Amino acid sequence: MTKKPKWVVEKEQARRDEARATVWLFGLHAVRDALANPRREKLRLVVTKNALDRLGEVPEGVPLEEADPRKFPAPLDPGSVHQGAALEVKPLDWGPLEEIAVSGTGPIVALDRVTDPHNVGAILRSAEVFGARAVIAPSRHSAPETGALAKTASGAMERQPYLRVGNLADALIRLGDMGYLRLGLDGEAEADIETAVAEGQGRPVCLVLGAEGPGLRERTRDTCDRLVRIGAAGAFGSLNVSNAAAVGLYAATREKPA
Amino acid sequence: MTKKPKWVVEKEQARRDEARATVWLFGLHAVRDALANPRREKLRLVVTKNALDRLGEVPEGVPLEEADPRKFPAPLDPGSVHQGAALEVKPLDWGPLEEIAVSGTGPIVALDRVTDPHNVGAILRSAEVFGARAVIAPSRHSAPETGALAKTASGAMERQPYLRVGNLADALIRLGDMGYLRLGLDGEAEADIETAVAEGQGRPVCLVLGAEGPGLRERTRDTCDRLVRIGAAGAFGSLNVSNAAAVGLYAATREKPA
Repeated sequence: MTKKPKWVVEKEQARRDEARATVWLFGLHAVRDALANPRREKLRLVVTKNALDRLGEVPEGVPLEEADPRKFPAPLDPGSVHQGAALEVKPLDWGPLEEIAVSGTGPIVALDRVTDPHNVGAILRSAEVFGARAVIAPSRHSAPETGALAKTASGAMERQPYLRVGNLADALIRLGDMGYLRLGLDGEAEADIETAVAEGQGRPVCLVLGAEGPGLRERTRDTCDRLVRIGAAGAFGSLNVSNAAAVGLYAATREKPA
Repeated sequence: MTKKPKWVVEKEQARRDEARATVWLFGLHAVRDALANPRREKLRLVVTKNALDRLGEVPEGVPLEEADPRKFPAPLDPGSVHQGAALEVKPLDWGPLEEIAVSGTGPIVALDRVTDPHNVGAILRSAEVFGARAVIAPSRHSAPETGALAKTASGAMERQPYLRVGNLADALIRLGDMGYLRLGLDGEAEADIETAVAEGQGRPVCLVLGAEGPGLRERTRDTCDRLVRIGAAGAFGSLNVSNAAAVGLYAATREKPA
């Protein structure tokens, strides 16, 4: 019997880890949104009597554990404002990028090492508002699906596809092969987003954003079709990354005057 | 001698309190930006030897206290990542709204009870990027100028006028008298920002944003010339308030195609 190569063993291990991984969502809003999401695999609801009254209906089949508010047994990070409700779930499975990328009509947002859950949460909200097909990020050096992310995403995590891919540059190459126009945001670029989108003549758009400070990594940058800047932005200061994403999404999708 | 009316006494007291109030800025970036700002009244720099080396030049006349990193003596909130540098300063005096409102060319952003310093910090950054004349907010129920706000503003607090006014609706009435077109953001509105700005035919714009959830208060809403929504935004989800401000500023200032 041939021994499996190391990379196969590691890949299988990673897949097993992922299948085992669960996420604790917390807070009335996040828990209510997840309970209402039929795609969400719910493992265990820990809830105080008071919070249960405020949650409304709990779908059948969700194991429920009533908890004492003074000794709340869910394993949350210290400082998490749980409001007496926590739900253990499996991460959502959005399916392969290739399927998501050909359904719907909106842009895709690719995040290169944006790790702050508050920024990624706000970006998921904006992505939903502007009808983005998906937000993608590398599986390492990004913000994992956590309770803190769910809270800042304010419900959008249940509805907006958020895919983490093994290698971001490879994913961008696949999107390019599918016809996507990949626009990397860069304050120093000459072209502005709206011009680049218009010149793309209806090609689907993938907006690529880097972390504040380092910006896009070299390989990510090389994989973009064009670097673009946000028009009207002056020479002073810089946008927070979630603000840049929101403006970029607006600029890429705004209704053109008739 | 006539006794002063109660409201005069209270107003004088409030003015004295304000003159006494100081702010502790912290973190290498925020402290460096404040030290470099000639308009900023600096009272006391508390700094470790290591941080002093990294700060670069300290302007003459700033009282400097070298501190032990293990016993850092500045009165900061617990959890503040000070990086060994803290600077006590006076809040910036941006002068009266009437002067700021007639200088420069950009829009004004009015915030109705937006209290989260992270959101206001990000809004100051966006305001600077899009050349806004000022961000205004009521003196109560808003985010005061603090070290936490300075940190998320990433330098913008030193450069972007941020005025807190006694009464927001009164300030909006004064801006209206000066010729400002006051546009209140409301997801349910029919007109979109760009159309409203175009129909204003060059009138200076004041964008008015409410807190997430409650939105604009009734009196604020009544003081707006029009309620507008962000074009291209779909029916699902909602933008974080700093993202709405960034998109609103972009929509109000974007370069029109020739």
